[in-house]
Amino acid sequence: MIVVMKPGASQRQIDHIIERVEQLGLRSHVIVGTERTVVAALGEKRDGAKQALETGEGVEKVVPILAPYKMASTEVKQERTQVTVRGLKVGDNHVGIIAGPCSVESREQILEIAQFVKDAGATGLRGGAFKPRTSPYSFQGMKEKGLELLAEARAATGLAIVTEVMAPEHVPMVAAYADVLQVGARNMQNYPLLEAVGESGLPILLKRGPAATIDEFLLAAEYVLKTGNSQVMLCERGIRTFEDHTRFTLPLATVPYLHQTTHLPVVVDPSHGTGKASLVATMARAAIAAGADGLIVEVHPDPEKALSDGFQALTPHAFREMMQECRKVAAALGLEI
Amino acid sequence: MIVVMKPGASQRQIDHIIERVEQLGLRSHVIVGTERTVVAALGEKRDGAKQALETGEGVEKVVPILAPYKMASTEVKQERTQVTVRGLKVGDNHVGIIAGPCSVESREQILEIAQFVKDAGATGLRGGAFKPRTSPYSFQGMKEKGLELLAEARAATGLAIVTEVMAPEHVPMVAAYADVLQVGARNMQNYPLLEAVGESGLPILLKRGPAATIDEFLLAAEYVLKTGNSQVMLCERGIRTFEDHTRFTLPLATVPYLHQTTHLPVVVDPSHGTGKASLVATMARAAIAAGADGLIVEVHPDPEKALSDGFQALTPHAFREMMQECRKVAAALGLEI
Amino acid sequence: MIVVMKPGASQRQIDHIIERVEQLGLRSHVIVGTERTVVAALGEKRDGAKQALETGEGVEKVVPILAPYKMASTEVKQERTQVTVRGLKVGDNHVGIIAGPCSVESREQILEIAQFVKDAGATGLRGGAFKPRTSPYSFQGMKEKGLELLAEARAATGLAIVTEVMAPEHVPMVAAYADVLQVGARNMQNYPLLEAVGESGLPILLKRGPAATIDEFLLAAEYVLKTGNSQVMLCERGIRTFEDHTRFTLPLATVPYLHQTTHLPVVVDPSHGTGKASLVATMARAAIAAGADGLIVEVHPDPEKALSDGFQALTPHAFREMMQECRKVAAALGLEI
Amino acid sequence: MIVVMKPGASQRQIDHIIERVEQLGLRSHVIVGTERTVVAALGEKRDGAKQALETGEGVEKVVPILAPYKMASTEVKQERTQVTVRGLKVGDNHVGIIAGPCSVESREQILEIAQFVKDAGATGLRGGAFKPRTSPYSFQGMKEKGLELLAEARAATGLAIVTEVMAPEHVPMVAAYADVLQVGARNMQNYPLLEAVGESGLPILLKRGPAATIDEFLLAAEYVLKTGNSQVMLCERGIRTFEDHTRFTLPLATVPYLHQTTHLPVVVDPSHGTGKASLVATMARAAIAAGADGLIVEVHPDPEKALSDGFQALTPHAFREMMQECRKVAAALGLEI
Repeated sequence: MIVVMKPGASQRQIDHIIERVEQLGLRSHVIVGTERTVVAALGEKRDGAKQALETGEGVEKVVPILAPYKMASTEVKQERTQVTVRGLKVGDNHVGIIAGPCSVESREQILEIAQFVKDAGATGLRGGAFKPRTSPYSFQGMKEKGLELLAEARAATGLAIVTEVMAPEHVPMVAAYADVLQVGARNMQNYPLLEAVGESGLPILLKRGPAATIDEFLLAAEYVLKTGNSQVMLCERGIRTFEDHTRFTLPLATVPYLHQTTHLPVVVDPSHGTGKASLVATMARAAIAAGADGLIVEVHPDPEKALSDGFQALTPHAFREMMQECRKVAAALGLEI
Repeated sequence: MIVVMKPGASQRQIDHIIERVEQLGLRSHVIVGTERTVVAALGEKRDGAKQALETGEGVEKVVPILAPYKMASTEVKQERTQVTVRGLKVGDNHVGIIAGPCSVESREQILEIAQFVKDAGATGLRGGAFKPRTSPYSFQGMKEKGLELLAEARAATGLAIVTEVMAPEHVPMVAAYADVLQVGARNMQNYPLLEAVGESGLPILLKRGPAATIDEFLLAAEYVLKTGNSQVMLCERGIRTFEDHTRFTLPLATVPYLHQTTHLPVVVDPSHGTGKASLVATMARAAIAAGADGLIVEVHPDPEKALSDGFQALTPHAFREMMQECRKVAAALGLEI
Repeated sequence: MIVVMKPGASQRQIDHIIERVEQLGLRSHVIVGTERTVVAALGEKRDGAKQALETGEGVEKVVPILAPYKMASTEVKQERTQVTVRGLKVGDNHVGIIAGPCSVESREQILEIAQFVKDAGATGLRGGAFKPRTSPYSFQGMKEKGLELLAEARAATGLAIVTEVMAPEHVPMVAAYADVLQVGARNMQNYPLLEAVGESGLPILLKRGPAATIDEFLLAAEYVLKTGNSQVMLCERGIRTFEDHTRFTLPLATVPYLHQTTHLPVVVDPSHGTGKASLVATMARAAIAAGADGLIVEVHPDPEKALSDGFQALTPHAFREMMQECRKVAAALGLEI
Repeated sequence: MIVVMKPGASQRQIDHIIERVEQLGLRSHVIVGTERTVVAALGEKRDGAKQALETGEGVEKVVPILAPYKMASTEVKQERTQVTVRGLKVGDNHVGIIAGPCSVESREQILEIAQFVKDAGATGLRGGAFKPRTSPYSFQGMKEKGLELLAEARAATGLAIVTEVMAPEHVPMVAAYADVLQVGARNMQNYPLLEAVGESGLPILLKRGPAATIDEFLLAAEYVLKTGNSQVMLCERGIRTFEDHTRFTLPLATVPYLHQTTHLPVVVDPSHGTGKASLVATMARAAIAAGADGLIVEVHPDPEKALSDGFQALTPHAFREMMQECRKVAAALGLEI
């Protein structure tokens, strides 16, 4: 950590910082520059020290040197993590495709779409049973009945079930049916939930919050990893920016950046990431070109009648075409899909 | 709702939309423009119809006319809501001041600071017992012990206790000690939590998520209001933007805009809204000039030794000066503080 | 245009709006809804009317129906525009590659890099002679001497020269040397400059401003198109968001969205779009998968010694590898590169 | 400057950085930490060195210690700059009020409004003669005729004329009529224009670009200051964020932050900063509470008939009320207005 003193900081202020650094169990090292003095604080402590120091009198700013996360970091684990569950393989040169409706709406709907996405090449089935909805007046999901239907779809197709859990107290119930627990973007910093899903032992699909920095995203993953659960997939699903022609802005550079920073696999959600069915397939193949380890895509047999998010769902036909394009790009880059 | 068809939409597509509008229980009204046709859908339905229509073939976009929230709206209730609990009055020309440390750290700390902020003019005491922290390696709060200390501080000072609750299962415990339940910015769209705090019957301080639009913020309030709990304070605490000289960007125009849109009182948090102690007092008085119904401010007896967020905490001395300035501005504008 | 009246707007206010609509040369059409009245204003007028109406008493908002740009729109011209100059072809299934240093620094540098990028497959040479720099203390470019060196590099290689012009009064000089005039992101709304480059008759590479919406971007293009110059390439180079792990956020969904909206070709700049050399090649191939009609990439023989933006420049070796990957993706999608 | 090496950087890489630091005329100082090595580069060089170092092999990042601007900095000049021209005083405890229409539209309009704003307490008159408009189909201003009318309004009232200049070649003409040259937000980084207005010797009102960081804003001011012109007013007029209920987001913390960082006065534009007439007066008084040294406000005799931006203009009556409120706040804080 580097403590930058204000120009004109007094010797007393500098001495105070040195003393504080040492009280925190770090070694201090003073550098006297042309206009300012800088105190380096050396050691492994990652938390608390920064803020303890930046409130010191005469301090202009404190610059951390170490990344704030540990277990997610490539500094700690070099080999890439692959998440495998049933036929779904995500990471380490395998691109896993998770597809399905926004919400489970009926037995017919989910069985039909499950068979369809399987035939088109998906190995995971998405479908919400518990739906976090911006408006309390919107459809909130079929709840446990929806989970039962997902399990039935799995029995029929062998697809791995990926579904969202919204509260710690629902984890045991959802975990009884699902193969992968999804933590939604709105809950990325719901820490009791992160701990509860971590302790389930199931693989986790963690969605990036729309205003989360990459550090915050990895620290959220760290909450899960700390429970001893290392099966975490990071999901980029778009950030909130000033752009209004898409629902969110999908920053694909997240993919190569995370590949340099963490060993965890990165899944891209082009459905939420654009919020427009007409852009989904193109962004899906761009995500694969960017190195995504997986895709999660909304598909609905009749988007116009979907109970949620129909505007961003692909028709089965459009999904099949998307898969063909994605396979071409993956093949060109030597990736399995 | 206005359905705008694409230029060149066919009569069959237009007829289909008219049929869909009527299936949804709305009346349709067609307007043939120079380049496009527009179908107005008339009626009270606020949810689901928009998305059911915007996936229709030949549709370019659907423009909602009604606000998506109801109970929070000034269209439904004209008179301004005032939240009152112990000596704390927020709204309707009363500016309520809530102050205290980021976290409860010890008996001495909280008792000292409570007495201090009371003497300086606060009527509410903030202090976190359950702390949502970005990093799992950070101090997570004293939990129930912290709540006990808050209650002791209340007994000593009469201040209303405002403290955060992070999970639905903690609501009964926190509600047993607190006067106001705070829902943090990270949990603004944690819907099970919103319902649980609503059902507690206590007044709620709902913080705006850093990427939430005003509509999303009011819809989150609507989740609480729907439980029958009308004691909701909206808290602007800064949004995430590209600016990096402050921790968040504090958009004070939220205050007059919300005053035009909702009857709920609006509290401003200049501590999180700037993330810099040196900017807090100035933004506190600017918030009052913008018409804020309350302030929530971090104060710590020794910010340098705070276990969380010391960099944005005022010293007791700085808080007293802030109060003096705020009183001047309030008096100039005929507000009680 | 749809004028939405406030709930409770008086008949007098509604009549006033109807009168205003007709004064503006538009036809009015009134729709009485459940809670509000809406006045549709029909006709072709795109400008001024919106704002003339939205200030009317009792008006809540005015919703435009037509896009604000015309000549850039696919509604006006369906067939895709291809820009061709020397060997550079951009658009309509041709991916044009423009590469070179941020700044022209010396005769050796530009001749060496020109030959190199040509050998690797580029058909355009970028290189700044006039450099807009955030700091007045930074290198500002070699000016006319730089243009001469670019012309010499063209003579040696046949590459089309793409270079920035910063002020209307420089247009004749830069146009005397360049094949394509670049308008930088900082100047996207420098209207005298847009008109001056349009009148040069040369093809234009127009960079998106980092805070510009797509409508603003297309309206900037419209300033050029209005001069009668239809050779406009739109360049996505990243937008400013809260993300701090990249210099800008590169929103690749711009590419398919623009392809639906305008007939103009879309070039992507992964160098500025990420600001990190280690992310450029991956985002270049993702851009091609997203359908980009061209790429503009910074390459420097020795990035460490570059006088500007070395941190985002590829080495010649890395550029050659990038081209190989891009060719694979383009081939997979049936595009020429 | 602090060069942070990657974990595991080799001694050769470290030695190379030390060598580069010294070639750049800086002194190096090596600190070996627990996980990483850090090289401090000491000396006054502000530009170029950062980027020269951050491309070095084995370098993770380079952290600048000095602010990139000099002449704007409080480190260089402690006493606050006051800009004075005719009766307009901005800075150093004087709040200068500049008001008037978005565009000069006619002799009657500008003379009427000038007299009006003067009577209400303004000492500066704004009014655009050259109008940068997003759409080429919008009214572009009366040009020189507009300048003549502004001069006539000055003759009648004594108000200082503040008007925008859009291109270097217009500077002499505009400077012949105006008292203050305004550089608009779209031109904040139009460097030839910044130099040209600087050389005019007139006071400059420099608007912040909607995506500009504070460092970029101050570096733009530095372009003007470098010409020897020290009469620069910084104008906060709102930034572009995801918020859609206001036209821009007005971040008032800019005011106290700039007061800590620079000696230049800070003017706030609540008209563009909100884009809604109904929010302007409240944000004007909040700006004064935040310490603004001036306000620039749009006022139009009949906003509904304004040729530009009527939706954000105050009526004369509303402006007079705004002034009354602003005076109360200023008086409470001991400021002259």
